[in-house]
Amino acid sequence: MSADAAGASELILRPIGLIRTPFATTADCPRNGLQLDPPPRCTVEIFPEHVAALRDLDGFSHLILIWWLHLAGPAPPSFVPKFDGQPRGALASRTPRRPNPLGLSVVAFDGFLAPDRLAVRRLDCVDGTPLLDLKPYLPTTDSEPEARMGWLAPHATRGRS
Amino acid sequence: MSADAAGASELILRPIGLIRTPFATTADCPRNGLQLDPPPRCTVEIFPEHVAALRDLDGFSHLILIWWLHLAGPAPPSFVPKFDGQPRGALASRTPRRPNPLGLSVVAFDGFLAPDRLAVRRLDCVDGTPLLDLKPYLPTTDSEPEARMGWLAPHATRGRS
Repeated sequence: MSADAAGASELILRPIGLIRTPFATTADCPRNGLQLDPPPRCTVEIFPEHVAALRDLDGFSHLILIWWLHLAGPAPPSFVPKFDGQPRGALASRTPRRPNPLGLSVVAFDGFLAPDRLAVRRLDCVDGTPLLDLKPYLPTTDSEPEARMGWLAPHATRGRS
Repeated sequence: MSADAAGASELILRPIGLIRTPFATTADCPRNGLQLDPPPRCTVEIFPEHVAALRDLDGFSHLILIWWLHLAGPAPPSFVPKFDGQPRGALASRTPRRPNPLGLSVVAFDGFLAPDRLAVRRLDCVDGTPLLDLKPYLPTTDSEPEARMGWLAPHATRGRS
């Protein structure tokens, strides 16, 4: 694919479920899933046609959730974070206002409440957010405890549970 | 949004760049970004309209890349991994054949080769893969070194560099 062809193409996704959180509006959402201590219990509802794809998810302690930031506004290339005061690139941040509105969190997985219902903690998205993907978290490839945080280092969230 | 409305809706993404790897076909791709030791240098090319959004990405040692699995085939709810021999749910694995073909890797970021070109390591996708999103990796929320790997535990990749 040429760069021109790739940039012009439209790729289509469909939600596989909905995320239920205690956060009714975006203004209620914490800055990240660990800002609230302890992080509240949330629920992931999987649509019936995808329940069979959850087979053997038991046994993983953490998941990666990818969702559609359905309430995010326009995505300027840079913005001034409230907690920072300097212009920062959208792709150099975790802002919901990104070129493609994909949200991501690593969550603690507390097991199934029902075959189509997962109990998780450490979400920061609004109630009713459309879920796009769910992956098992693999510490062998996904964990980098010593990673450097660039301009975000002074703003690190300390809560952890 | 009701579950019916959400499941029926089509969400549209556009690539923001292309991923360049030494893997010409999916058969050449490693199982994950750390299977090859050392993992080869790869390049991320960002389309011109998104270069400004990279501001201040310097300083982060690791990134999360999300891409479109443009060559993945149909996604059955479960499949038998070659390395395992048991049927496993697609969403309980990192298979490219998922309900929404979103790929994800945590990569080591070695800096800019040009304003629109990033040097990275630890990719497992085919050359020319369309990039959808790029996020700075934050150890405070993204790193879970003690996470349990469920059915994948006996198959953990040991290479690490």
